Amino acid sequence: MADTVSVSGYLFTRLYQLGVRSIFGVPGDFSLPALDYVDPSGLKWMGTASELTAGYAADGYARVKGLAALFTVFGVGELSAVAAIAGSYAEKVPVVHIVGTPSTHAQDHRHVIHHTLGDGNFRVMADVYRHFTCAQANLRDLAAATALIDATLQQCIRQSRPVYIELPFDVIHLQVPASPLRHALDCRPPPNDPVMERMVVDEITCRLQTSKKPFIVVDGFAHRYGIRKEVNTLLRLTGYPTATTPFGQSTVDETYPHFHGVYTGSAGNTSLHTWIQSCDLVIHIGPLKSDCNTYAFTSLTRAQCTIELDHTRVSIFGTEHRGLDIQSVLRKLILTLPSSQLSPLAPSLTVPSRQPVAKPSNVAESITHLRFWSHISMHFRSTDIIMVDAGTPWSGSEDFMLPRGAILIKSGIWMSTGHMLGASTGVATAQQETKEGKQLPIPRTIVFEGDGSFQMTVQALSDIIRHRLHVVVFVINNQGYTIERIIHGMDAVYNSIQPWDYTAVAGFFGAPQKDPDFPVATFRVAQWSELDSVLASDQLNKGRGLTLVEVQMGMKDAPCLLKEFIALHPKQNRQDLGSPGK
Amino acid sequence: MADTVSVSGYLFTRLYQLGVRSIFGVPGDFSLPALDYVDPSGLKWMGTASELTAGYAADGYARVKGLAALFTVFGVGELSAVAAIAGSYAEKVPVVHIVGTPSTHAQDHRHVIHHTLGDGNFRVMADVYRHFTCAQANLRDLAAATALIDATLQQCIRQSRPVYIELPFDVIHLQVPASPLRHALDCRPPPNDPVMERMVVDEITCRLQTSKKPFIVVDGFAHRYGIRKEVNTLLRLTGYPTATTPFGQSTVDETYPHFHGVYTGSAGNTSLHTWIQSCDLVIHIGPLKSDCNTYAFTSLTRAQCTIELDHTRVSIFGTEHRGLDIQSVLRKLILTLPSSQLSPLAPSLTVPSRQPVAKPSNVAESITHLRFWSHISMHFRSTDIIMVDAGTPWSGSEDFMLPRGAILIKSGIWMSTGHMLGASTGVATAQQETKEGKQLPIPRTIVFEGDGSFQMTVQALSDIIRHRLHVVVFVINNQGYTIERIIHGMDAVYNSIQPWDYTAVAGFFGAPQKDPDFPVATFRVAQWSELDSVLASDQLNKGRGLTLVEVQMGMKDAPCLLKEFIALHPKQNRQDLGSPGK
Repeated sequence: MADTVSVSGYLFTRLYQLGVRSIFGVPGDFSLPALDYVDPSGLKWMGTASELTAGYAADGYARVKGLAALFTVFGVGELSAVAAIAGSYAEKVPVVHIVGTPSTHAQDHRHVIHHTLGDGNFRVMADVYRHFTCAQANLRDLAAATALIDATLQQCIRQSRPVYIELPFDVIHLQVPASPLRHALDCRPPPNDPVMERMVVDEITCRLQTSKKPFIVVDGFAHRYGIRKEVNTLLRLTGYPTATTPFGQSTVDETYPHFHGVYTGSAGNTSLHTWIQSCDLVIHIGPLKSDCNTYAFTSLTRAQCTIELDHTRVSIFGTEHRGLDIQSVLRKLILTLPSSQLSPLAPSLTVPSRQPVAKPSNVAESITHLRFWSHISMHFRSTDIIMVDAGTPWSGSEDFMLPRGAILIKSGIWMSTGHMLGASTGVATAQQETKEGKQLPIPRTIVFEGDGSFQMTVQALSDIIRHRLHVVVFVINNQGYTIERIIHGMDAVYNSIQPWDYTAVAGFFGAPQKDPDFPVATFRVAQWSELDSVLASDQLNKGRGLTLVEVQMGMKDAPCLLKEFIALHPKQNRQDLGSPGK
Repeated sequence: MADTVSVSGYLFTRLYQLGVRSIFGVPGDFSLPALDYVDPSGLKWMGTASELTAGYAADGYARVKGLAALFTVFGVGELSAVAAIAGSYAEKVPVVHIVGTPSTHAQDHRHVIHHTLGDGNFRVMADVYRHFTCAQANLRDLAAATALIDATLQQCIRQSRPVYIELPFDVIHLQVPASPLRHALDCRPPPNDPVMERMVVDEITCRLQTSKKPFIVVDGFAHRYGIRKEVNTLLRLTGYPTATTPFGQSTVDETYPHFHGVYTGSAGNTSLHTWIQSCDLVIHIGPLKSDCNTYAFTSLTRAQCTIELDHTRVSIFGTEHRGLDIQSVLRKLILTLPSSQLSPLAPSLTVPSRQPVAKPSNVAESITHLRFWSHISMHFRSTDIIMVDAGTPWSGSEDFMLPRGAILIKSGIWMSTGHMLGASTGVATAQQETKEGKQLPIPRTIVFEGDGSFQMTVQALSDIIRHRLHVVVFVINNQGYTIERIIHGMDAVYNSIQPWDYTAVAGFFGAPQKDPDFPVATFRVAQWSELDSVLASDQLNKGRGLTLVEVQMGMKDAPCLLKEFIALHPKQNRQDLGSPGK
């Protein structure tokens, strides 16, 4: 290793050491020379058609790999991606957003440079990003650059949230010592205070021992905190009944015999709701207590009988303990359990076990939400990553029955339409980096989008084709924003959209026509028989290349859960989605 | 008129009274019920496929009509449009951005609502928008709502910059007094202090009387300040030689005999540069002194011989006078001139008058930048609005020779790729509102985009088709980001893009196939003969419907001025684009 390295090279090498292999973005004048350092650092430049799809791609990549990098240009570029980064922040996704900024000379002299507001203030963009990132670094002080990069990347991983790094144009090539690169960056959380941890684990064990009617609710941040394995071990060791939140779907191995699906509060399964609300102990792991994730706060349980296990916080029946890494706590708890005598459980929950909804016997019938989601999930495989966007797919996916190992990615609070289509390029990139060559059939990335959402980030299809990513896209074509129709304005013109010829997308974006390594196929289905023949096709089963399936459904059709969810709220206050009274 | 009106109705009616007829945006749950008030207020809802194209559309509409409205939903929606609004702020475009926010109850109780960051802080988005808007209103205090709306709209017009209006969900329907609507809102600037104005006009007149070698540089904000007519009168009355900046193109009637085209500083026309820099008086009207608009600051003139006429500021040879509305000053100056004896001018500027560059005699030759821009401008009409995006079209357009009345819209500082394609829907909407039915042939909106830029905001094509807007799109297909190639990385893979089949766009977006009222045609040209047959086609000349022309050019070909511009800067500091030393 040379004694010195460029600032850009240092940053990219650190990203490589932390497992990043691809960097998403759009080039811009202030960032161009830095891009020459991408390849030599072992990273791949994943240029995208727009910054918004780059931002979402980084979000998707980080949800799979635990870290992602996005590189945009100052002002115009970074602001075009801010909606994506804000979503990553809200949902705790660790994305390193690097911004190529004007030279320090231009900044210090307040030059009226393009891509600025013209007022000589070069801090505006960083001020914006302060709201959406957990740490910020402006790499203008060469003596501090390497330490600043290291500390910022550490925060990104430890807090599991985006960070913001400004790389001024004249700093790109400047040399810094390479020596810190000899040691991997330690991004583990600091060890827990053993006395406090012991106390907390003992108290949890005690609550478990005395509980007669316990329940475990597994939420989506469990995945982000890397505790999926510990959670499933906890389930097996306790034998407690469990459910996930919508955001937490796929965190629990669904073959676990006491798994009861998605807990949707007072919507949906009434007997499950009644059971959980009458439990004497609820363990809520990786909580995200947003309106949509808690079905208008109706799935929240009383603090007096709830143990909340958050990233660095444990709340036991209302008493908070902060500064404890949750993975370590769970591991200690798991070690304790075999020797702890848990109470015998109350008569077990009698909710009938989940069964897929059969498709109608007449296969010429139109496809409806009622049966679609459950039916299609029978075709998922353990190596699949499935993604569902906001709108009808979000609710529909609560009918999924997932094979062990399959991962479902959905939003828990940001709920931005088009998010998952954009993120699918990052997910597929991560899948291909991790698994390609090792497994057959190809691990698939399967994304479900509404038609309105699809239009938001259609450029992602171009990115998929450009980078030859293996993605299956289902477009639910119901002629507009059906979720909005159900909320307000069922027949209003403002809830309609331009009808696209979705199956023409591949041709428009220049997909190869007959490439055996990257086959491209598009389908349009409206009846069950048509859907089934697509599901049985080689194209879908091999999972190679790009597959797009337009699924035509009724304009006013929606998953029952979505209708129930919206009906939970009085019309005049529908958007409040209830009150978190618990 | 009823005694009361809803807050939404009040806001929309005020917009109508100020000349707005269309409102751009994407519906979202918090905003839905407000959309029911759009139609009854006389406005048309212009739904778009994405918030970014809605934002750009509003920008384009406001550049033509003097005011536009954008309506998005809280968080996810508004952040997706912020890059557009930031551009409107930088280039002083008056856009009213209305945001449908969660109910005041949810906000006051810090509920963890979807579309938020989950921290109970509902002020984050407004904090972001503070940077990009000149006034903000949160319509939660009913007693203040009408006055707040009025004051905010006044600021939008007076400062010619975006404003931000939050409309909480529970306020949408609430009633306020309708009485203020009986009187039109006075958005005129306050009258100038007559003594100060007299003094300034006298001093300017005096400078004109003593100047032997004067020059007038007309810049782009002149259009925004509504002083195009006064500027052209000033030219005729003085007979002074004149040029525009790049941003100022089309502000001057190009049939004026002393018009010398675009002043590009030390790039391009050397004799013009030498002449202007040796003038004893330069009047710079509506200045925007950004690096790109001043060709790396080389077109700036010395303060000691420059009169700057800005929106509310006059600078005479270095002495500043603030708080003077410039339109009033110019009108007074114009009244004074006929009786003022101006000095006889120095021997006139001997720059040869501008001639279009003839196309090559061999029409089978490939189209090049050298001749394309000048040649195509021969086909423009006085009723056209022409738009050129950042990249090669921006520089290329400096070869345009514009007919009297034609308007050219281009960026002066924000320089965001894809901006103009998005803005073209707003421009075409404004054109059709203002002129349709009155004139034949149809006033055309003609937009020139690079291929990379086109990909950024391709959804605009869907918006054009959906709303049946008459737009001609030229896509300069040079296989990637050619402007970036010239700056750095001529053959670098990061400057390439996915090759699209641009002519397939209409089919993909569901354009009508044979509708006489909205004909759609796409063309691909690479040779002069092909271009000429398109230019001679009925489709292009009638201007009705959507016309897309893909113009294939060499990957490394670029307008000479662009190459010269970039060569002005030492490589290591290219992005500083010189130093504004003047």
